[in-house]
Amino acid sequence: MSITIIAPPVPSSKWKAAFATLAPNIPIFEGYKLNKPEQIKYAALWRFPEGILNNFKNLKLIYSMGAGVDGVLADPTIPKHIPICRIVDPEMAFSMSNYILMAVLQHHRQLDAYKKAQKEKYWAQHEVDELDLNIGVLGLGHLGMDAALKLHQLGFAVSGFSHSPKNTPFPSYSGSEMDSFLSTINVLICVLPLTPQTTGFLNKSLFKQLKQPTFLINVSRGDVQVERDILEALDKGTLNGAFLDVFEQEPLPKESLLWTHPKIKITPHIASLTREKESVRQVLDNINRLETGQPLLNQIDRDKMY
Amino acid sequence: MSITIIAPPVPSSKWKAAFATLAPNIPIFEGYKLNKPEQIKYAALWRFPEGILNNFKNLKLIYSMGAGVDGVLADPTIPKHIPICRIVDPEMAFSMSNYILMAVLQHHRQLDAYKKAQKEKYWAQHEVDELDLNIGVLGLGHLGMDAALKLHQLGFAVSGFSHSPKNTPFPSYSGSEMDSFLSTINVLICVLPLTPQTTGFLNKSLFKQLKQPTFLINVSRGDVQVERDILEALDKGTLNGAFLDVFEQEPLPKESLLWTHPKIKITPHIASLTREKESVRQVLDNINRLETGQPLLNQIDRDKMY
Repeated sequence: MSITIIAPPVPSSKWKAAFATLAPNIPIFEGYKLNKPEQIKYAALWRFPEGILNNFKNLKLIYSMGAGVDGVLADPTIPKHIPICRIVDPEMAFSMSNYILMAVLQHHRQLDAYKKAQKEKYWAQHEVDELDLNIGVLGLGHLGMDAALKLHQLGFAVSGFSHSPKNTPFPSYSGSEMDSFLSTINVLICVLPLTPQTTGFLNKSLFKQLKQPTFLINVSRGDVQVERDILEALDKGTLNGAFLDVFEQEPLPKESLLWTHPKIKITPHIASLTREKESVRQVLDNINRLETGQPLLNQIDRDKMY
Repeated sequence: MSITIIAPPVPSSKWKAAFATLAPNIPIFEGYKLNKPEQIKYAALWRFPEGILNNFKNLKLIYSMGAGVDGVLADPTIPKHIPICRIVDPEMAFSMSNYILMAVLQHHRQLDAYKKAQKEKYWAQHEVDELDLNIGVLGLGHLGMDAALKLHQLGFAVSGFSHSPKNTPFPSYSGSEMDSFLSTINVLICVLPLTPQTTGFLNKSLFKQLKQPTFLINVSRGDVQVERDILEALDKGTLNGAFLDVFEQEPLPKESLLWTHPKIKITPHIASLTREKESVRQVLDNINRLETGQPLLNQIDRDKMY
């Protein structure tokens, strides 16, 4: 029983060290060009070239080492009988929600206006208002729900949208109610998984349905957004700002116009990073479950894609 | 029965308009140079020159139009028999806590490092860590407690300090335990009222008791801090940053070194602004209570000074 780690651009040495600490008896390999691929029963993956998993004839479990599984599911050659699991870490929700709250609050209190005033040594009291926010959370999975509940508990007006109806203490919409959801909000937080249905979802036709200038926060996946349309909506005033953690191409290319747009804040896909030890603990737990015939935790549904 | 409003630098026209809307039958005056001062039974105050309240021989109630009452209590000539009340507005706690959360979160996630990277079009993934925070809230009154509870509920490690012991779901200290409180924290949030005991409290001798480089947030009163000592502590590394909403002199003078210090964020005393309508509603409610012999709400204790 061996594990291989295929994780660029995440430094796989960090995962390897965590496995060595928590399960010193399990042989760990890095990469997919191995001498005896038939030894590998488990693969812990982040990004990998299409088709390479077929080298591992005895693979029993595939682990996507993050909250999203679009990277793994992008490979259509993965045999259907191998279960795919993902990391669900409460600490990741802590990070993600903190990032979202930070993005919401700096917009709510117009921190940029005060920064500008500080630069000019100008006392801008009674000149900058708190903004009245109606926050819409798009995607009420583990991470989206955590952020929406926290914003709600802090006293903000929150509504949510998800594929299937959810029981929420705030108004939430689903299915064909997207128009109602979008009509009331002025902050849109995208926490959608990347699926064929959500690819390019944040585009000009969605922005047109917004009734007020809206602040966009995207912490899901870059391929959910159409960056050309975001720039156009910012210039038209449909969007009044964007706080983006993910991009169509990562790292964001130097020539992207997003870098220098005055209404865009950029962070390098860090809203919620996987924590090595907790992730490895979950992998080991599920390996043990598989070996002892217990049901797997956090296994993804290949049809739903999350 | 008339009311006078003495409120510079707050534009008193806003208060006047709110009184006119909510109590159109009560004559409202502005300032203290009035023809018939004996008509005035109620004074709604923010800042005012010492001694001027003695012009109002029939004054029955003094209202400090904010959460702090240090402005009113600074005048020793106010007759002891006149009750002093203050505004306690849940919405002010909403504002104040949001400001505090914003200051904490932008420090926690090192937003400045990402801003710098954006300016340089640099993809700083895996280079900037979330900081492990141990947050200390100094002052557990209405506003301090609200912020501390919210930070605690979000999952942060919080401790509190207050003059008298409080029942809190997080560790809290009081009385002579300041040293224990300061020894564990690396974020210090000051929400103290201004009293003779707290004047100049945030000074070099307090900073010396900190065991780790600490991020300072002051949203209470400028006179609680010694700005020269904050600058020195930042340069020594005892403090690793400061998010300041209040200053020894307001507006902060152009020549202050705080404006341009790279580790200081400045906002112009806006963490929690009084809301006119809600404040006026509270004044009118207490006037009604006084007129009908019911106990006053939010009356301050002149000895405690809050």
